[in-house]
Amino acid sequence: MEQHQITLNAERIQANIEALARLTTPEQPYTRRSFTPLYRQGREQVARWMQEAGLDVSMDQAANLIGRRPGSAGDLAPLAIGSHTDTVPGGGRFDGIIGVVGAIEIARCLKEQGITLRHPLAVIDYLAEEPSEFGISTIGSRAMAGALAPEHLRLTDPAGRTLAEGIAQMGGDPDHIGEAQRQLGAFALSLELHIEQGPVLEEARIPIGIVTGLVGIHRAQITLEGEANHAGTTPMRLRRDALAGAAEIILALERLCRATNGQAVGTIGKISAAPNASNVIAGRAELVAEWRSVDPALLAHLAERFEEEVHEIATLRSLTLSYNLLSDTEPVQVPAEAQRLLMQTCEKLGLRGRLMPSGAGHDTNHIAALTPAGMVFIPSRGGRSHCPEEWSELDAIVQGTLVMGQALLAFDRGEQ
Amino acid sequence: MEQHQITLNAERIQANIEALARLTTPEQPYTRRSFTPLYRQGREQVARWMQEAGLDVSMDQAANLIGRRPGSAGDLAPLAIGSHTDTVPGGGRFDGIIGVVGAIEIARCLKEQGITLRHPLAVIDYLAEEPSEFGISTIGSRAMAGALAPEHLRLTDPAGRTLAEGIAQMGGDPDHIGEAQRQLGAFALSLELHIEQGPVLEEARIPIGIVTGLVGIHRAQITLEGEANHAGTTPMRLRRDALAGAAEIILALERLCRATNGQAVGTIGKISAAPNASNVIAGRAELVAEWRSVDPALLAHLAERFEEEVHEIATLRSLTLSYNLLSDTEPVQVPAEAQRLLMQTCEKLGLRGRLMPSGAGHDTNHIAALTPAGMVFIPSRGGRSHCPEEWSELDAIVQGTLVMGQALLAFDRGEQ
Repeated sequence: MEQHQITLNAERIQANIEALARLTTPEQPYTRRSFTPLYRQGREQVARWMQEAGLDVSMDQAANLIGRRPGSAGDLAPLAIGSHTDTVPGGGRFDGIIGVVGAIEIARCLKEQGITLRHPLAVIDYLAEEPSEFGISTIGSRAMAGALAPEHLRLTDPAGRTLAEGIAQMGGDPDHIGEAQRQLGAFALSLELHIEQGPVLEEARIPIGIVTGLVGIHRAQITLEGEANHAGTTPMRLRRDALAGAAEIILALERLCRATNGQAVGTIGKISAAPNASNVIAGRAELVAEWRSVDPALLAHLAERFEEEVHEIATLRSLTLSYNLLSDTEPVQVPAEAQRLLMQTCEKLGLRGRLMPSGAGHDTNHIAALTPAGMVFIPSRGGRSHCPEEWSELDAIVQGTLVMGQALLAFDRGEQ
Repeated sequence: MEQHQITLNAERIQANIEALARLTTPEQPYTRRSFTPLYRQGREQVARWMQEAGLDVSMDQAANLIGRRPGSAGDLAPLAIGSHTDTVPGGGRFDGIIGVVGAIEIARCLKEQGITLRHPLAVIDYLAEEPSEFGISTIGSRAMAGALAPEHLRLTDPAGRTLAEGIAQMGGDPDHIGEAQRQLGAFALSLELHIEQGPVLEEARIPIGIVTGLVGIHRAQITLEGEANHAGTTPMRLRRDALAGAAEIILALERLCRATNGQAVGTIGKISAAPNASNVIAGRAELVAEWRSVDPALLAHLAERFEEEVHEIATLRSLTLSYNLLSDTEPVQVPAEAQRLLMQTCEKLGLRGRLMPSGAGHDTNHIAALTPAGMVFIPSRGGRSHCPEEWSELDAIVQGTLVMGQALLAFDRGEQ
């Protein structure tokens, strides 16, 4: 009888996560920034695990670390699973890492349990997913999708090193970076396991999130110029208070996004005022506003309404407005068949799954341009990530990995 | 016939203002910070002008520069006129300076025009009125009022110098600073000419402001602690956004003060957020709020209502609040007779005068504890001060000085 279930080894998953967690900047756990010797050391470890799992390990021109396992059915496109192993500063032991460690555990189990897949398998540790010192993120997956432009390679980090040099140091070949680009359909399916980085699953006590789409993000820089004036001698009615205008804008975005009933979020987390003195009316205030949704129409509607409100606020307060759209990436939809595959896998395993958007960007944002791409989330304790307290329970990681592995088997056998 | 009018020399006033304006830090006009060699140089110039005006020049223990003229009627207390000659950084050519230059011009005219006063006259250049590098302001007038405490003398500037050392370098005697304190009634009347530093007179096209009182100032440091979280993965309803709470507080203070119909002003000009990143919900926000009024009851009412609203906002948003009152100085009332004296002087001179509060603090705040003290304001162009653009027209300065001089004459002759 064909084997329909892989049996994961939780201890190995835990040991691998802990081994990578030990590779941290000592003074700021848990930090393993992309393009550092520590990051390279971690990936050398990952490459050894891949080899032990029977994978054929190589690196593409964009320094994506890839472990390959052949399929049994001729020239089918590979199934891709993986994530990333770099962190933000103070970053975390789980974000990205569980997606790579889980994928390797699946490969180990396939080998040990003698399971042959019809499709080839590619376990991928994508290069530098987090915002890097070069000012961009998702560098490896971006290159695979052909979205890494020559001007990106010329970006420099604070030490003056170019991204091209950084990629070369990581084992890539920046002179032939174009060859890292994959064709449409290069993979038959891509799946990524990731921590939720939010509180939704934990709050609802649901172990598995099945991502319906990845949010598009609009971001705008807003500068208000009023008049810096004496806080004691300027009557209220004659003020042009840039900070009071900024306060109205902060609340306007909050109100607009609250009104979407969970379909969008919006944040103003960055502010500065000048001269920023307690006894001087602020003559200038700067904000960065962002809003996110998986619904492209809602995203556009919010953009329009918010910009209108910002203009109204500035006009009513006689403030000079500069409104500069910094980015407006579009949402990525997860194909219905990938969502269904993952949901049915959960049902078969007796695990509750919830369809939910991803509020964060991931390597899948780029890979989705090449192939049907799905994501599995597991709960984050307290919804926290990108901090030392980031935590996901081992049971949850094993369950998420199991959903990944079983979904791969089901897809491989055409059961979806 | 007794002479009832002094005739001012506008050119001399202008020349004196320009001479002091030239004594500026070259790279940041117009700056003459207290306790610097430039400031000392300026006061040496002021002392020469005092001498030329027939005044007997000395310095008290607090380094207040005083030019005295005897009176004709025995042991009457002196009439005090004056202001200060230090500036804020980037400061201005008029703030304080016109009050000293105008007072000297009055003394010159009294001498030249052979006018004898019954009261002695004291022309005073008060030490260091602006916020100094030692962290306090109105140092000279504070000492005169007995409000300079021993702990003030131990304050240090960024170079490590103590205020005691600074006062000694300016020519004072910090070891006997207590002797600078004047008794109640030490002056029969104190008058100070100052620029308005606000837009009220210019907007109303009124040349003379007669100060009814000097505002009390309450200032509070407000810290909100929420939870720093991912801007994409944290639903609106689960946020504890410290910056959004700060925005509500900014607008609450504005609303409360607007509702006083010009009887109070309130400002939040200082803000910081942490981590202050565009893609992270602010976990912490800090504000400094201040509100001012000449009405003690209104000031107390605002303090109570504002603190209540801040608590409500923090509670509704599940933010941890720290509310720390930094200062709560009480308003100073200008006695009705001093207001009447100045208003009647304006009428006699055919100048429109407006009764108005002073939204800023002045040396008069302290001198008012010793003696009936009044202030005369003249218009500030665009309401601006404490900046290089600070400007008042020569005509206005001469008119303000004339009001001062004629009011002195009237008071001296018991006409008020």
